[in-house]
Amino acid sequence: MKIAQFGLGPIGIETLKLAATKPWAEIVGGIDIDPAKVGKSLADLTGLPMLNDARVHRSLDELLAVARPDVVFHTSVSKIKLAGEQIEPMAQKGISVVSSCEELLFPKLRDPAMAARLDAMCVRHGARVLGTGVNPGFVMDVLPVCLTGVCSSVKAVHVQRVVNATTRRGPLQKKIGSGLAPAEFERLFHEGKAGHAGLQESIALIAHCLGWKISHLTETCKAVVADHDIRTPHVEVKKGQTRGLHQHGQASVNGRVCITLDLKMYLDAPDPHDSCQIEGEPPLNMTIPGGVAGDSATVSALVNAAPRILKAPPGLLLMTDIAVPSYA
Amino acid sequence: MKIAQFGLGPIGIETLKLAATKPWAEIVGGIDIDPAKVGKSLADLTGLPMLNDARVHRSLDELLAVARPDVVFHTSVSKIKLAGEQIEPMAQKGISVVSSCEELLFPKLRDPAMAARLDAMCVRHGARVLGTGVNPGFVMDVLPVCLTGVCSSVKAVHVQRVVNATTRRGPLQKKIGSGLAPAEFERLFHEGKAGHAGLQESIALIAHCLGWKISHLTETCKAVVADHDIRTPHVEVKKGQTRGLHQHGQASVNGRVCITLDLKMYLDAPDPHDSCQIEGEPPLNMTIPGGVAGDSATVSALVNAAPRILKAPPGLLLMTDIAVPSYA
Repeated sequence: MKIAQFGLGPIGIETLKLAATKPWAEIVGGIDIDPAKVGKSLADLTGLPMLNDARVHRSLDELLAVARPDVVFHTSVSKIKLAGEQIEPMAQKGISVVSSCEELLFPKLRDPAMAARLDAMCVRHGARVLGTGVNPGFVMDVLPVCLTGVCSSVKAVHVQRVVNATTRRGPLQKKIGSGLAPAEFERLFHEGKAGHAGLQESIALIAHCLGWKISHLTETCKAVVADHDIRTPHVEVKKGQTRGLHQHGQASVNGRVCITLDLKMYLDAPDPHDSCQIEGEPPLNMTIPGGVAGDSATVSALVNAAPRILKAPPGLLLMTDIAVPSYA
Repeated sequence: MKIAQFGLGPIGIETLKLAATKPWAEIVGGIDIDPAKVGKSLADLTGLPMLNDARVHRSLDELLAVARPDVVFHTSVSKIKLAGEQIEPMAQKGISVVSSCEELLFPKLRDPAMAARLDAMCVRHGARVLGTGVNPGFVMDVLPVCLTGVCSSVKAVHVQRVVNATTRRGPLQKKIGSGLAPAEFERLFHEGKAGHAGLQESIALIAHCLGWKISHLTETCKAVVADHDIRTPHVEVKKGQTRGLHQHGQASVNGRVCITLDLKMYLDAPDPHDSCQIEGEPPLNMTIPGGVAGDSATVSALVNAAPRILKAPPGLLLMTDIAVPSYA
């Protein structure tokens, strides 16, 4: 499987490094608009000598002049509009894409027109496009859905995720508002410039799988305020400043709250975990103490998905359309 | 989707009752060799008046004279040889099958020739055949595999299931040896006449998904001896008699134990639960306190799988080939 990487930020680099270890993958190049990276060898960017012959190109067309990937890992943006613009030219050439774009987890939610267009393009040209990751893409959506597979009835799905952000990478610590005044962070969240992206997509995916029509969908986000000074290798937070977020989404079906997703990501958060309760028959209650660590898990989710999408029929795919997640 | 039920024992009846509640399912008949059931209306067997027009037939041919199912739920045997003989005529007519036959979870393990023949037959005639259930089929195989989907490396997979058999149906209490002398139960286990079926299939499925070649596979089963008298609605167990089993399977890959499945099912077992540890990156540790209740979950797994197999390409399928489990 010939692989290219679109977006060579920290997640893109890690994706490349993991893909390079796979016997089924051959890395053929990268794409990034950063002039400091264009022209460089992927060996220089990743530290992996075996990638010496693969280079960073300014555009898809420049990459295609030297190699034709089967699958592109796309790790550049969270918004579906921009992701769609970047991915459409790939789909049009029959190149499949696994993207970390959070809004692509359930593309119909934000942009049904684009989703329909991209799906038709995939079908016409034999491409598969999938949005995935650890969250959205696994712990707050796919894993709870998977549990409902042994249920004869489902009344409600509740998911909680607590992440101790102190152990995470710098960009995440910034994304959750670390060091900002609480009001400033909450303003940025409402402008779509901070906070966790994809919570509504997770809710929409769960509802879709269960055949539920959402009548009301809400999402709130509050700053978690530091009660002590905190310093990480990436940020410094004074008592009274934001040390992270408490984000909550819920969906009602026929006037009853049937899906709640509760996400706490903050510095020094105690008892990190992922848990999920299915109200149904049988009732199910699952816990992953410590939680699924974010960054390496996101990269793994992307890379592990590549063999599975190629076995699926062409189209704009959902994680729940393709085979059960599995190490690949 | 036109549905028929092959095997009208307790699990078959429950499968029918659940399928009858689904808006996507139309029950067209049943098949059973029991003369006491043949000719009866399914309404009589299930207590559901809406099934009044569907009857029990002696054979597939007799059913086909009046109706043509798209999917048959097959709940009659644990052994792949007999299951294959019963299912082949269905596959040959392009009828898809979801089976509770434990050995069908990973058919290549016990009977690679039959698996190849059945797969070819499915492909030729457009049928899908799948073995599933809650165990094997979910808690000790599919769910652990699903967790590895966010791992960049997997060194070992360990699964534990503890079932308090006191809360389960009579046939299960007998299957685990309740009331037998311990030596008698262990003899029956070695003859393949008692104990949990499918543990080796669960191991084989996990190994298959992870791309592991098993060099050594072992399975042991010990009686759990009653330390007090126990009476359930189905069995009476005296102190010193068998009250259930402790079954253990493990597989080595390159001389190292990489998969362990540990199953305890006995009367009055304390702390029932399902848990699983993935040794890998990231390490994962999942627990379902109370565990996934067996009988209703098995029936649900069968019924929920039907819409998913029809979306998959024809063939003898594995649970991990088809879409993520989901309530349907």
